[in-house]
Amino acid sequence: MKARITVTLKTGVLDPQGKAIEGALKSFGIEGIGSVRQGKVFDVEMADGVDADNAQTVLKQACEKLLANTVVENYRIEIL
Amino acid sequence: MKARITVTLKTGVLDPQGKAIEGALKSFGIEGIGSVRQGKVFDVEMADGVDADNAQTVLKQACEKLLANTVVENYRIEIL
Repeated sequence: MKARITVTLKTGVLDPQGKAIEGALKSFGIEGIGSVRQGKVFDVEMADGVDADNAQTVLKQACEKLLANTVVENYRIEIL
Repeated sequence: MKARITVTLKTGVLDPQGKAIEGALKSFGIEGIGSVRQGKVFDVEMADGVDADNAQTVLKQACEKLLANTVVENYRIEIL
């Protein structure tokens, strides 16, 4: 079973990396982009014999403990 | 208009960062995860007056020129 975890910065948290990308796009002459915020994505392949409910629990743990800093980041788990 | 760009490593490209995450999860006692591959996500807010077709073109350019290394990465553009 596959899952995708998307980790994004919470609204209001400054994103200097996103700002740098906006600047770089402008300097490359790419117009029409208002703002950019960067996040992370994790494509996870679950071990055999893990069902969807179980996967949700395990992945929530993984996010809370390692993948997301829940002070400044939101995470979303999708079972594919 | 909002869009999301997801950049992931192509199949077969080594992902040491993903491997490190797998190791860290195991050392935290989180079981049931087979493998992890890390990618990037960009949440883009288009400038006013840009329509969906136009956005697709601009974002494709942004991916090819800056956001993705198309030698080793795939990108996907979703207009939200």
